[in-house]
Amino acid sequence: MTLTRIAFDADDTLWENEALYRNTEQRYKNLLEKYVSIGDLDSELFKTEISNLEYFGYGIKSFTLSMIETAGRLTDGCISANDLLEIIQFSKDMLDAPVELLPGVKEVVAQLSQDYELMIITKGDLLDQKRKLARSGLETYFNSVEVLIDKTKEIYAAMFETHDIDPTQFLMVGNSLRSDILPVVALGARAVYIPSVLTWAHEHDVAHLTDNGDYYELESISHLPELIQRIR
Amino acid sequence: MTLTRIAFDADDTLWENEALYRNTEQRYKNLLEKYVSIGDLDSELFKTEISNLEYFGYGIKSFTLSMIETAGRLTDGCISANDLLEIIQFSKDMLDAPVELLPGVKEVVAQLSQDYELMIITKGDLLDQKRKLARSGLETYFNSVEVLIDKTKEIYAAMFETHDIDPTQFLMVGNSLRSDILPVVALGARAVYIPSVLTWAHEHDVAHLTDNGDYYELESISHLPELIQRIR
Repeated sequence: MTLTRIAFDADDTLWENEALYRNTEQRYKNLLEKYVSIGDLDSELFKTEISNLEYFGYGIKSFTLSMIETAGRLTDGCISANDLLEIIQFSKDMLDAPVELLPGVKEVVAQLSQDYELMIITKGDLLDQKRKLARSGLETYFNSVEVLIDKTKEIYAAMFETHDIDPTQFLMVGNSLRSDILPVVALGARAVYIPSVLTWAHEHDVAHLTDNGDYYELESISHLPELIQRIR
Repeated sequence: MTLTRIAFDADDTLWENEALYRNTEQRYKNLLEKYVSIGDLDSELFKTEISNLEYFGYGIKSFTLSMIETAGRLTDGCISANDLLEIIQFSKDMLDAPVELLPGVKEVVAQLSQDYELMIITKGDLLDQKRKLARSGLETYFNSVEVLIDKTKEIYAAMFETHDIDPTQFLMVGNSLRSDILPVVALGARAVYIPSVLTWAHEHDVAHLTDNGDYYELESISHLPELIQRIR
């Protein structure tokens, strides 16, 4: 079927995101190194994040609460209140950070918006995602924005229904196989996987191939118009 | 114009919400009373919440981060880490709390769903609101759910456009004049104000009347079908 609608993941597909988390993790390590051996910190924080997902979901506020909880647990409650409060400041700095578009994004999005309906489909915190979009300068190119609580096959299916989307006319572009590619392909849509340099561990642990190998992989978003020209 | 669509606010319109916050504030006071005079606590917490709104938005995670920040500030950093961590536990307890429908809600929603398209329009945390809806047992009665980052006239107007809503065929039901009634009436839609016993201070401080007095006020949602019968 003819392609009519192209949807983009946002974080690490349109703009840098993971780098901001890694940078904050470094500040977090520096803050905690007087209390604990920093070796275990990454994996301990990751454990807390995963166990808090069902409560707090994705996004900066959730990450912040998990950093505070992990710091308290690993220091057996010996961390000072002021150091814990510093972690809240980290989150405000993250929320204040400028939105850095990835190379080629602006041109590609502007070009494709002339021929296709463009969507953003992201997960995470509603307020934070809307604010990043407003700051990105890309808002005018997109017809709609969906912030989902998670990116499972069921949630995509419900979203397709709400927006009256025919999967065979739909293409999803993103940097996470787990979240952007596999569930969409399973619903009969097409997908373009553009790996990013940094990807959160939670998005990693799936097999690298779909059942039917039915997605495209690009090194850079700059090649997207060319691919679409070929497959539309 | 004929009424076709009825939208409901969720927190304190369909189910109890503010009581959960008040209850948590009580636990928070009990936790902090060994450090500070509890007199100022309410207003100090409120100040933090308002100044954090632009960063964190509405919802339990935001409230939790504000409780932690306020506790640190008021105790000059002397609060123990374990007490700060207890505040994170408060938030998990809030997120785990059962959803208590307000009296009459189930019957009224079920009845109106037979003749009208029903929507939920709420603000706050996406994940938390979706989860409460799932737990409420009301999900099947609603055609769509919108979680907004705020309930301003501009945001309602954008939402009307996305959903192709004609304001003259639309009625909004809610417990906050500021968020549910005035912006919607300003856009030419009708609104029913049902004050709740408890309302967050932030929702309070607007004049009690619209410019044109153009909304209805009910004591209980149970009278809604009767009112709609009259004004449709």
